[in-house]
Amino acid sequence: MKLYDVSMCIEPTMAVYKNKEEKKPIILQSAFFDKQGVYETTMTMNLHTGTHIDFPLHTLPNGKTSRSYDLTTFLGKAKVFDLTHVVDHISKADLINLPIENDDFVLFKTKNSFSEAFEFEFIYVDISAANYLVEKHVRGVGVDALGIERAQPNHPTHDALLGNNIVILEGLRLKDVVAKTYPWVALPLKIDDVEALPVRGVLIDDEV
Amino acid sequence: MKLYDVSMCIEPTMAVYKNKEEKKPIILQSAFFDKQGVYETTMTMNLHTGTHIDFPLHTLPNGKTSRSYDLTTFLGKAKVFDLTHVVDHISKADLINLPIENDDFVLFKTKNSFSEAFEFEFIYVDISAANYLVEKHVRGVGVDALGIERAQPNHPTHDALLGNNIVILEGLRLKDVVAKTYPWVALPLKIDDVEALPVRGVLIDDEV
Repeated sequence: MKLYDVSMCIEPTMAVYKNKEEKKPIILQSAFFDKQGVYETTMTMNLHTGTHIDFPLHTLPNGKTSRSYDLTTFLGKAKVFDLTHVVDHISKADLINLPIENDDFVLFKTKNSFSEAFEFEFIYVDISAANYLVEKHVRGVGVDALGIERAQPNHPTHDALLGNNIVILEGLRLKDVVAKTYPWVALPLKIDDVEALPVRGVLIDDEV
Repeated sequence: MKLYDVSMCIEPTMAVYKNKEEKKPIILQSAFFDKQGVYETTMTMNLHTGTHIDFPLHTLPNGKTSRSYDLTTFLGKAKVFDLTHVVDHISKADLINLPIENDDFVLFKTKNSFSEAFEFEFIYVDISAANYLVEKHVRGVGVDALGIERAQPNHPTHDALLGNNIVILEGLRLKDVVAKTYPWVALPLKIDDVEALPVRGVLIDDEV
């Protein structure tokens, strides 16, 4: 059995959206052996740091939050699709021949997975692809960039997916992952009633 | 199949160690629809908040950190033992007849699981029990309080376990969990080289 850890490492030097300084996590020692007798760390992070889930409230006023989704959303099977040939963005035409079915959690492996830096021209999911995924009634959509859309004003891809209560998983690391269906777990931190949650995601290859 | 979520919910009003104000997480909205066009949250938390793993550096200068432990530490099987009859603390005598074996991840269910508040007189694991667990070469020890020791000066239970690179999982919620062996996952956030990590833990009961 082989485990693929598909999560980004959270650290001060990590890639953050558009390299914005205020998006970088702050990780500081807060207890010291010579004072408190122990070592402790305190961290400040935007909940969209690293590998994370977006819930509807992220782009939709009155949208659902983490409270409306239980653990079964993030367990079971994930289908990884190889879209590393895609240039610029994923559109409906790139998906139409893929075996995407009702309640699938789909993960798209693109060129994004081969860079650790934030790429301003990252491969994104356009509105035609988002609408197609809505038609297919998927449960969730995972991407290997820190955003799922890039050049689209008013975030229509987020709105199409989140407006149908389909969760978005951003910041996956899929470089070493072969495209196929995996048992998986993507456990978020347990924070009630928020618009995003950081996640540790693991694909389990039980065929090796 | 039934899932037991054994994690505490992270929220400003949650129980924290000794009810210390500085241990409470701060969860604040940091992006707004009328300004940034989206909703985002930023959180500040001590890494020992809620359900979390202690690594050796927590109490031992130069101790190992999260960097030295891979995901297999937190996957596989967990053995839940019913110690709800125990008064004040768990000692070697309470463990000696339990089927604790090499490489086990053991979770102790005590009276602690029946209170959501921080109990100053929580059931703890004494040094005789810690030394016994070291002899047994367990992989990890989970408890249902925010600490694994209470009245013991110089944290000998931490030092005995962590000094043998046995991880400690604190803050489990086991109220509804029947004592037996479960497949489980306890996925920590992915932060490199720190002394503790918050965890989402799930026991899987595949016999129901």
